[in-house]
Amino acid sequence: MQKIPHTKLNATMNLIIFLFITLYTSCVYSYNKIIPRFPSSIIHPENPFSTSTSNNKLYKTKYFTQILDHFNYNPQSYQTFQQRYLVNDKLWGGVANSSNFPIFVYTGNEGDIEWFTQNTGFLFEIAPHFKALLVFIEHRYYGKSIPYGGDKDVAYSNASTLGYLSSEQALADYATLIIDLKKNLTAIDCPVVVFGGSYGGMLAAWFRLKYPHVAIGALASSAPILNFENITSPYSFNNIITQDFRSEGETCYKTIKRSWKLIEETAKHPKGLEKLRKSFRICKNYINAEALANWISTAYVYTAMTDYPTPSNFLNLMPAYPIKQMCKAIEDPRPGEDTLEKLYKSVNIYYNSSGNVKCFDLEDHSDPHGLGGWTWQACTEMVMPTDGNNEDSIFPASTWDYNDRRQYCKQNFNIEPRPNWITTEFGGHNIERSLGRFGSNIIFFNGLRDPWSGGGVLKNISESLIAIIAKEGAHHVDLRFSSNEDPEWLRDVRRQEINIIKNWLSPYYKDLLETF
Amino acid sequence: MQKIPHTKLNATMNLIIFLFITLYTSCVYSYNKIIPRFPSSIIHPENPFSTSTSNNKLYKTKYFTQILDHFNYNPQSYQTFQQRYLVNDKLWGGVANSSNFPIFVYTGNEGDIEWFTQNTGFLFEIAPHFKALLVFIEHRYYGKSIPYGGDKDVAYSNASTLGYLSSEQALADYATLIIDLKKNLTAIDCPVVVFGGSYGGMLAAWFRLKYPHVAIGALASSAPILNFENITSPYSFNNIITQDFRSEGETCYKTIKRSWKLIEETAKHPKGLEKLRKSFRICKNYINAEALANWISTAYVYTAMTDYPTPSNFLNLMPAYPIKQMCKAIEDPRPGEDTLEKLYKSVNIYYNSSGNVKCFDLEDHSDPHGLGGWTWQACTEMVMPTDGNNEDSIFPASTWDYNDRRQYCKQNFNIEPRPNWITTEFGGHNIERSLGRFGSNIIFFNGLRDPWSGGGVLKNISESLIAIIAKEGAHHVDLRFSSNEDPEWLRDVRRQEINIIKNWLSPYYKDLLETF
Repeated sequence: MQKIPHTKLNATMNLIIFLFITLYTSCVYSYNKIIPRFPSSIIHPENPFSTSTSNNKLYKTKYFTQILDHFNYNPQSYQTFQQRYLVNDKLWGGVANSSNFPIFVYTGNEGDIEWFTQNTGFLFEIAPHFKALLVFIEHRYYGKSIPYGGDKDVAYSNASTLGYLSSEQALADYATLIIDLKKNLTAIDCPVVVFGGSYGGMLAAWFRLKYPHVAIGALASSAPILNFENITSPYSFNNIITQDFRSEGETCYKTIKRSWKLIEETAKHPKGLEKLRKSFRICKNYINAEALANWISTAYVYTAMTDYPTPSNFLNLMPAYPIKQMCKAIEDPRPGEDTLEKLYKSVNIYYNSSGNVKCFDLEDHSDPHGLGGWTWQACTEMVMPTDGNNEDSIFPASTWDYNDRRQYCKQNFNIEPRPNWITTEFGGHNIERSLGRFGSNIIFFNGLRDPWSGGGVLKNISESLIAIIAKEGAHHVDLRFSSNEDPEWLRDVRRQEINIIKNWLSPYYKDLLETF
Repeated sequence: MQKIPHTKLNATMNLIIFLFITLYTSCVYSYNKIIPRFPSSIIHPENPFSTSTSNNKLYKTKYFTQILDHFNYNPQSYQTFQQRYLVNDKLWGGVANSSNFPIFVYTGNEGDIEWFTQNTGFLFEIAPHFKALLVFIEHRYYGKSIPYGGDKDVAYSNASTLGYLSSEQALADYATLIIDLKKNLTAIDCPVVVFGGSYGGMLAAWFRLKYPHVAIGALASSAPILNFENITSPYSFNNIITQDFRSEGETCYKTIKRSWKLIEETAKHPKGLEKLRKSFRICKNYINAEALANWISTAYVYTAMTDYPTPSNFLNLMPAYPIKQMCKAIEDPRPGEDTLEKLYKSVNIYYNSSGNVKCFDLEDHSDPHGLGGWTWQACTEMVMPTDGNNEDSIFPASTWDYNDRRQYCKQNFNIEPRPNWITTEFGGHNIERSLGRFGSNIIFFNGLRDPWSGGGVLKNISESLIAIIAKEGAHHVDLRFSSNEDPEWLRDVRRQEINIIKNWLSPYYKDLLETF
């Protein structure tokens, strides 16, 4: 996921947009020349399914001929593209003898569906219990699901071709594909439950709301569906990051808070940039104080999102509780380490836990997970104010200014964002009131250490629109593979989720029996 | 609403498509040269609001700048057009002193919104009771709400410009307009209830399902949301018409049933067409057996739809219980009237109750209510199988053949219909199961004498998705102006509807109070 640039260094550092799952990848913005960097060394998640051999065992890859535009009928809307989806039917109970075992569908995010699949172990682990068919659908314009004959250069060339990249079209894709798949499997009566994390979680929740005839329920994990307009404070995102670090130590928090000025000042000295380069092991090709600060802040932001209780390799290879480790590096330095060294050790937790990286390339703009389309989405409908920083923020104070976004989008795509559209289409204002007596069967999971949790649904809306909160949880931690080291609260979250899903299925089967 | 043509005379006669509210208008189809005719003498409804002076008192006309394409972001999607809406705020209680009186919105159908407004007296009559603001929104591409600078010739010129005429875009228009209007009126907390009849009723129901954050409930009158794919039998529509006539007398039914052959045979005789012309008072310019049969069947179809218990002037000026009158003309003829004369007297009930028409012009293709866009909608998403006729049908036996539609649409618009799209987007299959535990606050009214009732929701889905049925009711009779002659069952239907709407508002206000 690409970062939307800012005008000022201060603001840039915490302008963490639309990453969700995901990352500041790459991409130089001519706008302010700030280049958040994603080290190419950490592309491959190290889980049991990380090799192509085991992926072959995990799922079969299929393609569906999808229509480009579901909502209009002009000739260009009839174009089609190949949408990728992954299927695991090994544990599925099927439809024999009038049984109708469930279908669990992951509503793909803004990136390669294989990556998300490999990071959604929860589904593989609960499938045996439910005898469920697993389907992971890739979001249009990502991974291998590229319109215009699969030619990404064409699809991403301009607003005319990118124009069909929207969440409404993606949801309609999912509905169309699921209905067709069920017909082909003669599984029309099998209940479908949708799952998703981050943007995929938003899609899962919205899918249940908009297509209740296709999915009987949704688990929306870390889905900040309220992070639009003024529903959630634009300071919320960075406040949570601040709190995450502050909870590990006041010294840690203050050291980072003061570091931005230190870096700025150091850079002004003769040989200051060389000092910074040496302290942070930046490669020879390029250095610049703003880019460095941005690179550092990126580490804090994504570590806050992935502050998991066990070692992980989602964005990067990371130890358990990485924020704690970052703060430890700052608060318990080795003898002789100066502040810059301490800071380096802290960001090293994020960028180089493997210890393999010799130097860091601030010009590395690789996008290993194919998240590039998010910039477009952020410039059209996904206008999510997240980058305000109040005086207490761990990042320099700044305000959210919609005009920055607007100007960026004008410059890069010659497009005008529609910042009010998502709430028009999906709601969000006074959600307790508007959904308190409407809809059913959605779980909103949020881990409160996740900066996106500020835009999530944190209170039950009704008896069956349920919020599950984990005080110590991070970004869709519930959807990850379990491990023997998982803390009790995480096991408990997953148990709750499984029980709730069971409680959606039982009445469905009861209704089904009554129909016949 | 335009008729979609058929290949055979028999089939054509009962192919009543997409008229809903509405009419076989006009338009020569080169395909089979059948021209259903709508006499231009009956354009103006005769109700208290029929003159332009009283319309001025009834509502103010306003325009809203609407975006052409809500779901995509290519440059052409940013085009705008002026959407007309009518407002009556004279009875509105407003928002003073933290009161939040309701807003009743009519979700416009496939035609001029003034016409529908004038035929939706129910809203004007209940507004004082609720102190409600009334808003009637015109559907895009109809009336004065024409994209492409209001130039209908351009907007209707080809599939590229017509492509944005879809129900999903219309619903998004309504959401966008309502939210903006509420902001402008500082009426954000005022509850909105949507109302609609026929296609407008489908839109009202779908609006509540898709935009529950905008409307707290919907009265969907005579909304055949189940008349898609194979959910409703394609024979249902004409079976109901058959039953309507048969219930008034077996002789009436049999006479009409045999008449198609009689007309065909008569036309074959020398001077046969002249005999038909004389019997049916057809003007000199044009006659043809197929066109005549079609013109006659049109009368039966629309009379079945508007078989109201009091005199009406919706489609045409008509007496109370017009089917009864039609059958009376057949069963109690004046001395000396032959069968053709009897048939003429019966269709005269529909075409010439005023007695003013001297001769009927089978080539009259006027479209007084601007319903022309329905043909396009019927060729894209509104593929509603209605024109099967079994052996008992009052019309000649025929089967529904999707390929007829497909071929017609190919020929006329070079467009491929998407017959499965509506059920993908809005559901419909097993509606009790899919909505039994989802959604709330919709009334589905159906009058069982209305041929469209076969595609309606006739059973309660849940405690608050309620079916109201009137055995003797016709097409959205509940939404019409009341009269002193209204039968008790109709008064009772309206009383029920008012009570249910009250029961949506009370909890809304309770929730609102609790929020503050």
